[in-house]
Amino acid sequence: MRVRRLVVTLSCPDRTGIVAAITGRLAGIGASITEAAYHADTAAGWFSTRQVVDRASVPGGADMLRAVVGQVAAQLEVPGGEPVRWRVRDTAATPRVVLLVSKESHCLHDLLGRMWGGELDMDVRAVVGNHDVLRPVAEAHGVPFHHVPFPARADDDEARTGRDAAFAQVAEIVDPHEPDAIVLARFMQVLTPGLCERWAGRAINIHHSFLPSFMGARPYHQAHARGVKLVGATCHYVTPDLDAGPIIEQDVSRVDHADTPEDMIRRGRDVEKLVLARGLRAHLEDRVQVHAGRTVVFR
Amino acid sequence: MRVRRLVVTLSCPDRTGIVAAITGRLAGIGASITEAAYHADTAAGWFSTRQVVDRASVPGGADMLRAVVGQVAAQLEVPGGEPVRWRVRDTAATPRVVLLVSKESHCLHDLLGRMWGGELDMDVRAVVGNHDVLRPVAEAHGVPFHHVPFPARADDDEARTGRDAAFAQVAEIVDPHEPDAIVLARFMQVLTPGLCERWAGRAINIHHSFLPSFMGARPYHQAHARGVKLVGATCHYVTPDLDAGPIIEQDVSRVDHADTPEDMIRRGRDVEKLVLARGLRAHLEDRVQVHAGRTVVFR
Amino acid sequence: MRVRRLVVTLSCPDRTGIVAAITGRLAGIGASITEAAYHADTAAGWFSTRQVVDRASVPGGADMLRAVVGQVAAQLEVPGGEPVRWRVRDTAATPRVVLLVSKESHCLHDLLGRMWGGELDMDVRAVVGNHDVLRPVAEAHGVPFHHVPFPARADDDEARTGRDAAFAQVAEIVDPHEPDAIVLARFMQVLTPGLCERWAGRAINIHHSFLPSFMGARPYHQAHARGVKLVGATCHYVTPDLDAGPIIEQDVSRVDHADTPEDMIRRGRDVEKLVLARGLRAHLEDRVQVHAGRTVVFR
Amino acid sequence: MRVRRLVVTLSCPDRTGIVAAITGRLAGIGASITEAAYHADTAAGWFSTRQVVDRASVPGGADMLRAVVGQVAAQLEVPGGEPVRWRVRDTAATPRVVLLVSKESHCLHDLLGRMWGGELDMDVRAVVGNHDVLRPVAEAHGVPFHHVPFPARADDDEARTGRDAAFAQVAEIVDPHEPDAIVLARFMQVLTPGLCERWAGRAINIHHSFLPSFMGARPYHQAHARGVKLVGATCHYVTPDLDAGPIIEQDVSRVDHADTPEDMIRRGRDVEKLVLARGLRAHLEDRVQVHAGRTVVFR
Repeated sequence: MRVRRLVVTLSCPDRTGIVAAITGRLAGIGASITEAAYHADTAAGWFSTRQVVDRASVPGGADMLRAVVGQVAAQLEVPGGEPVRWRVRDTAATPRVVLLVSKESHCLHDLLGRMWGGELDMDVRAVVGNHDVLRPVAEAHGVPFHHVPFPARADDDEARTGRDAAFAQVAEIVDPHEPDAIVLARFMQVLTPGLCERWAGRAINIHHSFLPSFMGARPYHQAHARGVKLVGATCHYVTPDLDAGPIIEQDVSRVDHADTPEDMIRRGRDVEKLVLARGLRAHLEDRVQVHAGRTVVFR
Repeated sequence: MRVRRLVVTLSCPDRTGIVAAITGRLAGIGASITEAAYHADTAAGWFSTRQVVDRASVPGGADMLRAVVGQVAAQLEVPGGEPVRWRVRDTAATPRVVLLVSKESHCLHDLLGRMWGGELDMDVRAVVGNHDVLRPVAEAHGVPFHHVPFPARADDDEARTGRDAAFAQVAEIVDPHEPDAIVLARFMQVLTPGLCERWAGRAINIHHSFLPSFMGARPYHQAHARGVKLVGATCHYVTPDLDAGPIIEQDVSRVDHADTPEDMIRRGRDVEKLVLARGLRAHLEDRVQVHAGRTVVFR
Repeated sequence: MRVRRLVVTLSCPDRTGIVAAITGRLAGIGASITEAAYHADTAAGWFSTRQVVDRASVPGGADMLRAVVGQVAAQLEVPGGEPVRWRVRDTAATPRVVLLVSKESHCLHDLLGRMWGGELDMDVRAVVGNHDVLRPVAEAHGVPFHHVPFPARADDDEARTGRDAAFAQVAEIVDPHEPDAIVLARFMQVLTPGLCERWAGRAINIHHSFLPSFMGARPYHQAHARGVKLVGATCHYVTPDLDAGPIIEQDVSRVDHADTPEDMIRRGRDVEKLVLARGLRAHLEDRVQVHAGRTVVFR
Repeated sequence: MRVRRLVVTLSCPDRTGIVAAITGRLAGIGASITEAAYHADTAAGWFSTRQVVDRASVPGGADMLRAVVGQVAAQLEVPGGEPVRWRVRDTAATPRVVLLVSKESHCLHDLLGRMWGGELDMDVRAVVGNHDVLRPVAEAHGVPFHHVPFPARADDDEARTGRDAAFAQVAEIVDPHEPDAIVLARFMQVLTPGLCERWAGRAINIHHSFLPSFMGARPYHQAHARGVKLVGATCHYVTPDLDAGPIIEQDVSRVDHADTPEDMIRRGRDVEKLVLARGLRAHLEDRVQVHAGRTVVFR
């Protein structure tokens, strides 16, 4: 049985007394805090916090907590400054997720397995593939699969028009689910600027290199040619600036001279799976906050 | 397309000139070696090698190579010494595997996903569970599932008789497949001495601790109580001496004071999956040789 | 130039409103908090916090802060419960350290190098060796070296008496320095129960294995014999129960079948150095709190 | 007591029968091989091997072995192909090393400590600093220190002339020692093309980032600005193409949002020390071979 909790996240310009203000108000209504994390980025002058409250200690539930946190947030506003951002989420509502995939199965399979086993508390509403290859994986896990063909890569107007149309079709499938996360699980297509904006803070990509090394295509082949001794993967929010979005999680795996590019791809897959799963979990549990292109990821 | 190879493994008492003897004979028939690894355990006086030969360079195939390696092996015998062990395997034959499971899905799901994606070259012929919980996972991947109920743990005669009968039933399912590996993928039942012997060198277990720490039951709870800063997992061959079989692979994951036993279990699962997959791959690719209770694992 | 800070640590029985109580009081005197960490061990019902205050924001300095925190602590006392523990430390006072060593130089050399380079803010007042081997290392770094010979290991009365006398001599050298940490940097002698008690919470040991694996003597040889794939090290507080003190930090390094016990010792040394340095830093920066045999180590 | 060995390294165009040719000749003179490693880079068509021979098994010593290996090498030459490279080194001769440093002490201190403790078998003949800061560290370890001032960075002719003159002075100190390795232990000056060529295959640098990420200056500040979750270090051979030389060793350390650039620098130092020590050891033990800009590093 899942314990029901209310997750409060708040970030604002840094100054003295914020923690006292927040915790004082929470204590005032008898809220029992089970987890609390704070970060003050002194250089940037920005404060972030995440507090987890036992739902049972707040009779009025999320609405009551929203009223209280909203009042605190209003006090923390700095005239002319960057606005305070805050949110209260009730864990009784399972987060909704849509996965975008291409031909490689490892990330899709891993995420669906974590959902099946109850390890990742999420509701994958749909899988969209630009190829029809992974339909059996999705359907074996009881998730609807949608095939949206994309034109071959080419930089002429026709290809661009085709891609825009395909993305429009993807958006039509995705948006009605109002997903908390749209995961590019080795999707291999670059989102349009319009979708980057519409899905800002919700679109998550797994890049198969330790960014900023080896941006662009075929990173494992680049890594092999350079003779690196570690290969890695990066989970990041999608922004219009390709491969430059805020990094949520990274990890690496050791390789050596005996590893061919194919071996690196195989070793890298395990890193990709882990890094994406960890990054997505952090996002779905409201552990990630973004400011000035960098993330705070509360453990 | 998979390149066809012949994998030669040989181990014998160590002395000067073994490598020359082997490689000389292989060169003599024009065999093209694509991978070669050697290890001499000087303290134990024991030599091990693994050579991978391009099948196309040996017109007579595995049989021809067996004749040649057999002759070398005969020359390497030491009268009164430990016998030479050798084998030639043709990679055209996909290894057969049977998985034994209980209620936890993560290892089963991970291994079947690797098979589906073509990452692990194996043919999982059957999954046997002492509970019926994981049937959907097996069947979703097209693998037959067999439920063999086990009696509840108790140390009376009745329980022992029930366990022996259940294991006899498991063996009846497993043995006709002549599996190259019987994997206890979080099976949670201790093999009988008879099965340990019959499946010696083929039964592989994943233990959810960094052995020899926390042998026995509930290792993550033990780890939490001791306040360790890393949790781990161990893939090992099964022997009658519980949790003491030759170790194939181990790894760890960082934890801290904020992790409850449940968090440790969750973090540990990712290590278990990886360690089991790596250990099984090494076994199926004939990379593991055992001598005096320790493994040589050629990379 | 080192920024001057006041470090507040407090631990007490857990209940609602502690953070609000503490941060409210700190905010009340205008204290500017630059770092804050909290941990509530729900199962044990124990709360811990560490707060770093900018010295410049508290005109009355450490004394003023002690008065304030002392009042809060008094409010948090639970009649009949475990007493509240708290402390305020001014970072203007460099922590004093004494190192106990034997023949192996790597940990001693590493710690003195970190002091020399300004990386570890500590004042090593003396090095005591049960052999005279490491005198040049200490003296090259300008630290006095004291040689206190110990009797060879034997379990007769004479040896015990000799050890007790030697330890008495060590204590006479150590205690006048009133050290914040007494570090057993591969000292290889078991502290007497009396010294364990006198130096409780200040005596730190580096054990050359991943505890609780391979307790006792020659852990690398034990690890080699068992065929493990990782070797490790453990930094822990010294308690009368050998190798069972609260763990501050651990790490591991990969080994394989080609590593002899000597290779493992060499690889292990790098882990020992790192783990000890990290553990000691955490201790000296008041990041470690102990409850019920387990540590909270604030990052 | 150090066991005396002869280390044979050889690399040549790949073809069938090379191992048989080498090991056959070695067996023919009764050479007892204690370690052997091979690598065939199939894509590049290049073969590399390292063999360690017990000196006691070769009465004629290194000269005798050179005669034998020279004959094999002659047979392996391919007309018009890349020449065979080979070497026989007697471990009785301790390798000579010169260290180039600037102001940061951690790498210098670490390497000298490893020499002092007998862990790295090398003879550091001299330390050259472009500042006089680290003289006490060198001299405390009994190594002569030479201060060669460099002009401040500027791109005018005068600065270039000054740098060239300073480097000429460095070379005059370094070259008479005929060093097996010239180590840029955080030297912070770019070698002239002339020295890159003269010291090719012997000049080793430690770069304070996980190359190819964050090439150029202030990599930790770059890493912080990008918000990466790991920082790393790279040990590589120096080539005229800055930060692009063949990579010998790399590793990383986890960081998070709470780490300032200064924290990253501190965490990174431990990685730099380890990576440089491992890379230098591999070089001095003839474990590294370079082909086409990539290294083979035999374990």
